[in-house]
Amino acid sequence: MTSIIVFYLLYLLSLCLGLACVVCVCVWSGHWRGGFAWDGSALEFNWHPVLMVTGLVVVYGVGAVVYRIPLTWGQNKLPWKLLHAALMLIALILSIVGLCAVFDYHNINKISNVYSLHSWIGITATAVFAMQWVCGAAGFLLPCSPVTLRKVLKPVHVWLGGIILLLSIAACISGINEKLFFALKGNATGTQPYSSLPPEAVLGNTLGVLIVAFGLVVLKILSNHEWQRPDSRPEGLAYTPLLQEENE
Amino acid sequence: MTSIIVFYLLYLLSLCLGLACVVCVCVWSGHWRGGFAWDGSALEFNWHPVLMVTGLVVVYGVGAVVYRIPLTWGQNKLPWKLLHAALMLIALILSIVGLCAVFDYHNINKISNVYSLHSWIGITATAVFAMQWVCGAAGFLLPCSPVTLRKVLKPVHVWLGGIILLLSIAACISGINEKLFFALKGNATGTQPYSSLPPEAVLGNTLGVLIVAFGLVVLKILSNHEWQRPDSRPEGLAYTPLLQEENE
Repeated sequence: MTSIIVFYLLYLLSLCLGLACVVCVCVWSGHWRGGFAWDGSALEFNWHPVLMVTGLVVVYGVGAVVYRIPLTWGQNKLPWKLLHAALMLIALILSIVGLCAVFDYHNINKISNVYSLHSWIGITATAVFAMQWVCGAAGFLLPCSPVTLRKVLKPVHVWLGGIILLLSIAACISGINEKLFFALKGNATGTQPYSSLPPEAVLGNTLGVLIVAFGLVVLKILSNHEWQRPDSRPEGLAYTPLLQEENE
Repeated sequence: MTSIIVFYLLYLLSLCLGLACVVCVCVWSGHWRGGFAWDGSALEFNWHPVLMVTGLVVVYGVGAVVYRIPLTWGQNKLPWKLLHAALMLIALILSIVGLCAVFDYHNINKISNVYSLHSWIGITATAVFAMQWVCGAAGFLLPCSPVTLRKVLKPVHVWLGGIILLLSIAACISGINEKLFFALKGNATGTQPYSSLPPEAVLGNTLGVLIVAFGLVVLKILSNHEWQRPDSRPEGLAYTPLLQEENE
């Protein structure tokens, strides 16, 4: 019982931290960086942090812990599996649009793509995520996928899921750090320098801290074996052979 | 048996990746950034990446998995506990000297300290690590520490250990990314710009990728319950009451 209460406290904490991340990144891009557009200007770049933090970190993290909610364990797995797949698809689409924003901005402004360590880590995270979604859908949603394959695939899927979140956090921290150095260069650009910690710098740093905190809470939830959905099918529930969802 | 072979393959991989990280960061600072000194110049700063990567990532990671080596499970725990504490102390000292290098360089050159997100994450990692070492030594090495306390402390110690490694990796990635942008500014500084991916940029990015790979292998080793040292005391071994090392 104590374990269940701790779960719900951590789950509530993860939702609050996730919401705080989205609010912070929207205020940063929307207010301090001038807002949004899709016209090749810096306002198009502003979609990049918002969509990556919202997609690759927050929606991804919320989608990752769906199966861990004890309230759902007594219920048919299929709706939760579809919710997990749907949230991950939303996260993936947001991330890809977030990458499009930065590529488009770079291309229009003749800036090179994919040279920084931040971009290497971020691109890797998104590519592994896309691969994970396709393999997950094929392995766990297609009716023709055999139960033995699902049993082998599941630990790899869970393990890769954690790796993607780690890569996302590293990409976000390096990206926020880089953007604050670029944006807050001092007098020449009409801004206070990053080194004097103006309000925008405090907001950006706070966003980074919130992302790390959110990631750690989600990873803590994922790593506790007590909170894994039990494998056995609860009695009294109809068996749904189409997607074999109670046999994994 | 397969599990043991997989462990040793991953352990060997972690050692190779750790060695590659140290070689890369030494070549970067020693060759591409001009070498080392302790005179307030940029050559003093060069100690910072070398000592942080070596201490807070590589020696830390190697020290973290000491208990997981199956070869040691049949042996008295005390020497391995002392080795774990000693490696972690070396890692902590290297990290603190690495922080001293950057603080000293900043102070002499009138550059602000601890304003960037990179520094916030890195300082947090080192502070939590220092606290973890002191609590670990007091809780697991002092003969007067009760067995019940050790049982409560152990999961927290293991969990915090993983968090410190995650924070270290995020700090390293953001730090390498930031340093490459600072160092490779193009024509004005007599260097090729980062965006043209000169050899130094490839080396720095590769160092970042190696650090992430090393961290993931270490975290994989730490997260597998099959590779945790069994709690029960093997028969035929002398009981060592002083440090209660077989009772945790």
